[in-house]
Amino acid sequence: MPAPSLPSPRIIHVNTRGAVILAEESPETRDSRGIYLPNHIEPVSHIAVDIGGSLAKVVYFTRSPEEPPSPSVAGPSDAASNSFLHAEGTPSRSLPPSPRLQASHPYSRNGTLTPAVLESSQNNQSGNASRSDANGNQDERSVHDGETLDTELLRTTILKRTATVHHIPGGYINFERFETENISALISFISDLIVRSAEANGVSIEEMRRGVKIMGTGGGAHKFGNLLEKELKVEVVREEEMECLIEGMKFMTMIPEEVYYFSDELISEFSHPGTGKSRSSADGSIDKGRAATASSSTASPVLERPSPNPPRYAVTFETEEPSAHLPCLLVNIGSGVSIIKVDADGTFERVSGTSLGGGTLWGLLSLLTPAKTFDEMLALSEKGDNTAVDILIGDIYGTDYSKIGLKSNTIASSFGKVFKNRGEGKAPGERRNFKAEDISRSLLYAVSNNIGQIAYMNAEKYGLDRIYFGGYFIRGHSETIATLSYAIRFWSNGKKRALFFRHEGFLGAVGAWIKNIEGGGALSQTPASESLHGSDP
Amino acid sequence: MPAPSLPSPRIIHVNTRGAVILAEESPETRDSRGIYLPNHIEPVSHIAVDIGGSLAKVVYFTRSPEEPPSPSVAGPSDAASNSFLHAEGTPSRSLPPSPRLQASHPYSRNGTLTPAVLESSQNNQSGNASRSDANGNQDERSVHDGETLDTELLRTTILKRTATVHHIPGGYINFERFETENISALISFISDLIVRSAEANGVSIEEMRRGVKIMGTGGGAHKFGNLLEKELKVEVVREEEMECLIEGMKFMTMIPEEVYYFSDELISEFSHPGTGKSRSSADGSIDKGRAATASSSTASPVLERPSPNPPRYAVTFETEEPSAHLPCLLVNIGSGVSIIKVDADGTFERVSGTSLGGGTLWGLLSLLTPAKTFDEMLALSEKGDNTAVDILIGDIYGTDYSKIGLKSNTIASSFGKVFKNRGEGKAPGERRNFKAEDISRSLLYAVSNNIGQIAYMNAEKYGLDRIYFGGYFIRGHSETIATLSYAIRFWSNGKKRALFFRHEGFLGAVGAWIKNIEGGGALSQTPASESLHGSDP
Repeated sequence: MPAPSLPSPRIIHVNTRGAVILAEESPETRDSRGIYLPNHIEPVSHIAVDIGGSLAKVVYFTRSPEEPPSPSVAGPSDAASNSFLHAEGTPSRSLPPSPRLQASHPYSRNGTLTPAVLESSQNNQSGNASRSDANGNQDERSVHDGETLDTELLRTTILKRTATVHHIPGGYINFERFETENISALISFISDLIVRSAEANGVSIEEMRRGVKIMGTGGGAHKFGNLLEKELKVEVVREEEMECLIEGMKFMTMIPEEVYYFSDELISEFSHPGTGKSRSSADGSIDKGRAATASSSTASPVLERPSPNPPRYAVTFETEEPSAHLPCLLVNIGSGVSIIKVDADGTFERVSGTSLGGGTLWGLLSLLTPAKTFDEMLALSEKGDNTAVDILIGDIYGTDYSKIGLKSNTIASSFGKVFKNRGEGKAPGERRNFKAEDISRSLLYAVSNNIGQIAYMNAEKYGLDRIYFGGYFIRGHSETIATLSYAIRFWSNGKKRALFFRHEGFLGAVGAWIKNIEGGGALSQTPASESLHGSDP
Repeated sequence: MPAPSLPSPRIIHVNTRGAVILAEESPETRDSRGIYLPNHIEPVSHIAVDIGGSLAKVVYFTRSPEEPPSPSVAGPSDAASNSFLHAEGTPSRSLPPSPRLQASHPYSRNGTLTPAVLESSQNNQSGNASRSDANGNQDERSVHDGETLDTELLRTTILKRTATVHHIPGGYINFERFETENISALISFISDLIVRSAEANGVSIEEMRRGVKIMGTGGGAHKFGNLLEKELKVEVVREEEMECLIEGMKFMTMIPEEVYYFSDELISEFSHPGTGKSRSSADGSIDKGRAATASSSTASPVLERPSPNPPRYAVTFETEEPSAHLPCLLVNIGSGVSIIKVDADGTFERVSGTSLGGGTLWGLLSLLTPAKTFDEMLALSEKGDNTAVDILIGDIYGTDYSKIGLKSNTIASSFGKVFKNRGEGKAPGERRNFKAEDISRSLLYAVSNNIGQIAYMNAEKYGLDRIYFGGYFIRGHSETIATLSYAIRFWSNGKKRALFFRHEGFLGAVGAWIKNIEGGGALSQTPASESLHGSDP
């Protein structure tokens, strides 16, 4: 009896069951740590490349049967769970020692691509001890009655994978990042990956290339697509940027402990250190003392109820079913900002944006401070006092401006003291110097608060309570996250929530990676995909 | 028969009939040129002081029977009418020669206060040839049947004013500006004004002080109020800032040729020079070729119909009845930004704001460019090319991003190229320099576009089509005005309009000045005010 032909289910064909986010190797790679997927197989290797205004993000899958050496240290109830956040010297935030990864460990940044498609070619080559004979016969193989050759080959491939070390389900999603200005570095990386993979799989480079596709998204996919094709000699498929962002976001919400948000206490700890209470509560809009627990995250606007021992400063992970994430607003902060409305059924529309994004901050701080990288800029900001350069309400009024609900420590004019106080304490003609740390914190707040405000206004316009922030700008940086979170809760009187991703900068790349898999997942019940046919030698 | 006692009408008791905005003395004072009010009399001199985060604005009234030497050159149909805008080298925008003002001319910045209250005291002093006798008798005086002493005194005062040079209706609203950091300069100015006025009126300084009130608003009125009282020894009345802004705005809309807006052609001339057409029209949202004429300004969202000879680049003056200005949104851009919703009946509420305001731009440009004043910064920006520092959509995509409606010359990331291209064309470790002109234009656009976007979102939220922009930041600068105008029309698909004031920075001060007059206008039909009684020696 022929196997029934089932309609292709509208789901993402990557099995995320048991997915684990790996431990951090170093602070610089905190947002690009691999994700272990124990149940995924990739028929054709997809290298997803999201080339944006400033950065090119790369996502690809490498195979390994072994589990990672230790589970992710980011357990929600563990005070040390905030290790992936870059925030030194704050309570409950010391970094646990990073597990040492062996170079020979299956997961390392030198993993190789092992698309399943190569196995059928390996089956037909000599010299590999795990090969079967020319007909694909091996110990476990048997032809079932009624099986077509296609389905038999498929099943054989699966069985064969369970037999050998290299060919079982499971592997790692890898994340890499390059500067768009240095596109040749990106090309070299991918080229090297292909070469190493060809060696590891015992096939020629030409063969390897046939088992690789580049999924390009972001503006640079259009701009550099031809160059990639020419230099790498692999097929480059262009995917639309917004679609990839949304698909990537939806996928990442399925990875446990990927999506998180700050409790109110954590927000106020950053916004108003030492007060020990949520500032908004003074306005009567958020009750004091509420803590967010990992198990009680909810999509409703009602804050979680206190529990006996609430983790007061916990980063709280979202544990909602993925479908509960929609509808929502996605705010992607790269060089610039895109704001995308996503409906409950997954349809989306880019509704707004702003040009005051990461690129603005990086540009300003690169001229105004000695910092050379974004991480250096963030480090400066952590030590800064923005009130030295910002004009606060209290500076103008001497007190609160209660009539219109502005507290004395509300920022009235970002960077406003720089011109106003330029001659302060100086001889005529001399100019006052301002500290790089203070400048950094002021401008970080200015850009973040502005994005938060515009995001809030769009969320309100479209009746959305959940606002997801993505993009490299976030950088897992606690102050930035707290500022965005605070802005959303301030403007919405506590009714809306800001949520974040641990792999915040890779949503587009992941989406591009996902989009292709949907068409050819080996574990789906669709007829054998084109890629398997196409790989016959 | 006693004169009927009429209820005090709820109108502003300053007679603006025949008001004329004076010619510009110099570019620096383009926004603070005096306003001649031929029919106004001030019983007690009110010096209004609006002390903001960075600037202290002063408004006061000086008397003169003579009309100004030449009418305002800003006629709407005159191509040279744009003379008050600071924009060199643009079509139809050459400045006509400024009329030379004589030091002895009734209007000069050395005018003096001549409150009517002093006249009754002068009547009782010897040595003034224009005095009447102890009972106020003079040639034109006659007691009408049934008049009370109060109304007789009132009428006498009016008549007496017509008899002498100093005592006829009419005079000038004067505008001055100081830096808040230099509050002593403000105090000196007012002190000097009081001294000169005492001399001109032939009274003692103590007497003069009794005829002067300071109406203080802005945050600084709270902060510096006591200091002003102590140093100047006059009564200081504190007025609420938002109320003053609104009252000032409503008053200024009654001054002919005070409120204006840019036609679409003028906007596109600045936004996209040389294209000769409105950019938005390419999106199909605004019809091409529509011009705004002075006589057809309207509050409806429909654009004006073309006329036979439309002034293509005209600044268009609002000629609506003042009541048609409401409801509206008022966006006041000082060091920071306040956004105030004003209902049709004049009630208002501050609904939003942003800390990215004038202070931000002044601070950034003071560190990033050699400019020392805001006017120097604007001059730099006029020569700049923002595309050298901004990342445009075209830079990322190589073309338009039509799917989401973004043109290739839309700014994707303000200042984004500064970090991205920092090493371009340089030896390793060297940094690229960016031109002060380009930096200035980029940041001016960034701040202006952002304010426009936030203003638009609030206007949309509250269903308002008219958005008034006030505050020193505007500075009558064409680029800024065009940017704000374009932002509003872009986001609203042409349905909303941005409007501006020629005395944009003085709304709060004018409002403070007005608020007091409402209580004691000499030309009203209320019973003789307290001030006349109180001035009896």
